[in-house]
Amino acid sequence: ANTTEPLRFAAKPNFVILIMDDMGWGDLGIFGEPNKETPNLDKMAAEGILFPDFYSANPLCSPSRAALMTGRLPIRNGFYTTNQPGRNAYTPQEIVGGIPDSEILLPQLLQANGYRNKIIGKWHLGHQPHYHPLRHGFDEWFGSPNCHFGPYDNKLTPNIPVYKDADMAGRFFEDYIITPSGESNLTQLYIEEATSFIEQQAQKGQPFFLYWAVDATHEPLYASRSFLGTSRRGLYGDAVRELDHGVGRILQSLQKTGLANNTLVFFTSDNGAATYAKTSGGSNGPFLCGKETTYEGGSREPTIAWWPGTITEGQVSRQIGSLMDFFTTFLDFADIEPPSDRILDGISLREALLNNSLTDRPVFYYRGDLLMAIRVGQYKAHLWTWSNSWSEFQNGSGVNFCPGQEIVGVTTHDQVNHTSSPLLFDLGADPGEKYVIRPQSAVYKQQMPLILATLQNHLDHLKPGDPQLNMCDSAVMNWAPQGCEKLGRCLPVPPSSPYKCDWPH
Amino acid sequence: ANTTEPLRFAAKPNFVILIMDDMGWGDLGIFGEPNKETPNLDKMAAEGILFPDFYSANPLCSPSRAALMTGRLPIRNGFYTTNQPGRNAYTPQEIVGGIPDSEILLPQLLQANGYRNKIIGKWHLGHQPHYHPLRHGFDEWFGSPNCHFGPYDNKLTPNIPVYKDADMAGRFFEDYIITPSGESNLTQLYIEEATSFIEQQAQKGQPFFLYWAVDATHEPLYASRSFLGTSRRGLYGDAVRELDHGVGRILQSLQKTGLANNTLVFFTSDNGAATYAKTSGGSNGPFLCGKETTYEGGSREPTIAWWPGTITEGQVSRQIGSLMDFFTTFLDFADIEPPSDRILDGISLREALLNNSLTDRPVFYYRGDLLMAIRVGQYKAHLWTWSNSWSEFQNGSGVNFCPGQEIVGVTTHDQVNHTSSPLLFDLGADPGEKYVIRPQSAVYKQQMPLILATLQNHLDHLKPGDPQLNMCDSAVMNWAPQGCEKLGRCLPVPPSSPYKCDWPH
Ligand SMILES: [Ca+2]
Ligand SMILES: [Ca+2]
Repeated sequence: ANTTEPLRFAAKPNFVILIMDDMGWGDLGIFGEPNKETPNLDKMAAEGILFPDFYSANPLCSPSRAALMTGRLPIRNGFYTTNQPGRNAYTPQEIVGGIPDSEILLPQLLQANGYRNKIIGKWHLGHQPHYHPLRHGFDEWFGSPNCHFGPYDNKLTPNIPVYKDADMAGRFFEDYIITPSGESNLTQLYIEEATSFIEQQAQKGQPFFLYWAVDATHEPLYASRSFLGTSRRGLYGDAVRELDHGVGRILQSLQKTGLANNTLVFFTSDNGAATYAKTSGGSNGPFLCGKETTYEGGSREPTIAWWPGTITEGQVSRQIGSLMDFFTTFLDFADIEPPSDRILDGISLREALLNNSLTDRPVFYYRGDLLMAIRVGQYKAHLWTWSNSWSEFQNGSGVNFCPGQEIVGVTTHDQVNHTSSPLLFDLGADPGEKYVIRPQSAVYKQQMPLILATLQNHLDHLKPGDPQLNMCDSAVMNWAPQGCEKLGRCLPVPPSSPYKCDWPH
Repeated sequence: ANTTEPLRFAAKPNFVILIMDDMGWGDLGIFGEPNKETPNLDKMAAEGILFPDFYSANPLCSPSRAALMTGRLPIRNGFYTTNQPGRNAYTPQEIVGGIPDSEILLPQLLQANGYRNKIIGKWHLGHQPHYHPLRHGFDEWFGSPNCHFGPYDNKLTPNIPVYKDADMAGRFFEDYIITPSGESNLTQLYIEEATSFIEQQAQKGQPFFLYWAVDATHEPLYASRSFLGTSRRGLYGDAVRELDHGVGRILQSLQKTGLANNTLVFFTSDNGAATYAKTSGGSNGPFLCGKETTYEGGSREPTIAWWPGTITEGQVSRQIGSLMDFFTTFLDFADIEPPSDRILDGISLREALLNNSLTDRPVFYYRGDLLMAIRVGQYKAHLWTWSNSWSEFQNGSGVNFCPGQEIVGVTTHDQVNHTSSPLLFDLGADPGEKYVIRPQSAVYKQQMPLILATLQNHLDHLKPGDPQLNMCDSAVMNWAPQGCEKLGRCLPVPPSSPYKCDWPH
């Protein structure tokens, strides 16, 4: 190593992503949640910069997180399905696919440049060993490869493992308990893991990337005993309150260790609130529908950036942002060249963060393999509309992605093709996508050509990645995760029998 | 006057009410408006105390303002109709009634105790001379007795007068222009009137009550040239931005004159946003429906209190508040005995403001003569539901008080009687009133008796006032307001021909 190396290291900022699971834009006090139960996040916003126009790259966990890690749309990095058109797909236990080795992940690039990276919580980019975070740039892991669905009986379906680095440390509902009433100390464990890692890195003086991917607001909801019953919003609110507390603890830890001035922290969420879960789901504020959909409620995320001394406090940025921008922004601040052999969808938010300046950029709203909508400026055009299917909507379970909301011709229960005359909305005057702008109007004639040109440019350069979410097989489930032998927790693996996954919506 | 009088005067705080017209809970950045265009109000909240649970006493202008002025529900002070059950009524030009002399208004009591009171903007408590603000406790007036509807032709219907104190100073659309594109300097005039009054009172050293009842967010919307086209939200947003600017100017004026530390300022609105006006109306955030209705969107108001040095900055109050509380709160701070010969519905917010403590109090949601719903704690029970009528909803004009929202059995188009089994909602977990709590549930069995006891207590003590909004007569219109002679602007008064007003919803 030459003599300038240590200086370069010291100059490299730390990065923290606090990413929530299924938390909605409207779940924070600062974003208008009427119970105002997020004092730490509201304070973080007052000390940092608020991004009301920030988006996930997809309305569902896995593709959203794959996009974050790669800086690329799921249609490029393979996190989608072609089994049926326009279907949301993710990485349940039976999924065969995961993040391809050909993709370059943010932690890989940071690791190669001297960063130590830790993921705490949910990975969701594939659970077979070659997809694990430690194979893709992370140095440490405490958390699970899949959603903490359950409880299962560990027979037909194994309980989800919790990993400590490369080895399983136990399983959900066995070692990591969530009681039927929603009591669990998991968020506390995740907070401790985060603050310990920060203290460890502070002592080492080594730059780090902490990815805090907690999941208490994803069903099954949970909170610690001391938070249970404390929210006016029920268990969902208890979970939010504990996560808000956790954010406070983590920022405090950065301040106590003296790292705050050299650490860029983003708070955000992976997709819109699960409105179909009714009062067990969060709030998307004034936006339409939620998770699984390409209306604003599906992917508008409550986002705050914080970097004391570098970001001027109490700002609001009108920058249209994306989870994919973390990739490009962090590389920019760390002075690392982004890959030049592939299209990146993220942009650098450096100027937005430092000077509150604005960069034009479109938003592409995909659902599976189908480009459903585009936003350019404050206008959004729907090429396709679909909430969920009639059969799902009308059957006994009554799944509804837009409960209490119905916009005729917009929240459709068929996949409706509007490509010949896209449905245009003004997200400034009409953030709830209620009032279609008529094709005869001047504004339509002015805006639509810009949007269609953006669409054409996008399609001209699009080479869809190999779809990773087509095939399922019960043999790939978490029967015998590495480390199970030491714990005596290996389960017999059934014979392989691959089949096309069925994605209902 | 004895020698202690000047000291008592000096100790009396000033009061300012900044009341908006048809602005919704969701129209402020701090309450989650996604375009975040209200920096002055957001700053006011950061320096003061936010009330997310604050209500008007009625979902329509006139009854709401009558309740504010009297500290009493419209059913008591007479601001309702019995022409048809459950109909909203107000004070258009043809109304015969107004605020009865038997009612005691807040400015009367303040005036009798040495305050100088000014109303700027819309009165709406009756436009015949004996109803005017200068007959009911105000010393100064610049504004109009009715809504600034128009433009009219001054023939079948006279243009609304603008008063300077007791005399007409001109008329809307003649002297006080609002162009078809919405350009008007009225808000600027209202700002100047306010800051001049504050400066004048600062020089006099006399306590004051300033009631700033601006109306740029009520249709027809308007803004000054320098604000037109500046909002991402269209003309409605331009109006909001100018009012936000005005609030900043007024607070600044209080600070420059040294009065801020002795002045309690409330910002609020008179009823929910006019959702039926689509993109020409405001936003009620996550709440259901809007103006004219007894869902939360009809009467939840964006409320902030500000009193530097007395109110600790940056607080949120969970106190359930009401516009009727200004009456009782101001009397409390001014050390004036409230009337003891009548029921007051307002409570004093002194402890909420000074110590952030909470007082139990119910909310009664009336529509005309009909008690539609009650809130106790965080639970709300609908005794009746009605959005608007089928005929209104389905005819060509498509009036819809809940556009894009439909909750089956809740946003009904008939007046539905639920008194035998009220519809219960948990406003904590379900602020949007989407998920009815089943009568079989434990929470229903626990909460409903409390609510029904509150209802019974209310009804036991209720003596409805003489309804003021039953009779109309074109002879009472603003044909020849006092002062019209000097201006040569008197119009011939048609013969009197009283009739029962028709209130469609
Ligand atoms: Ca998620
Ligand atoms: Ca009004």
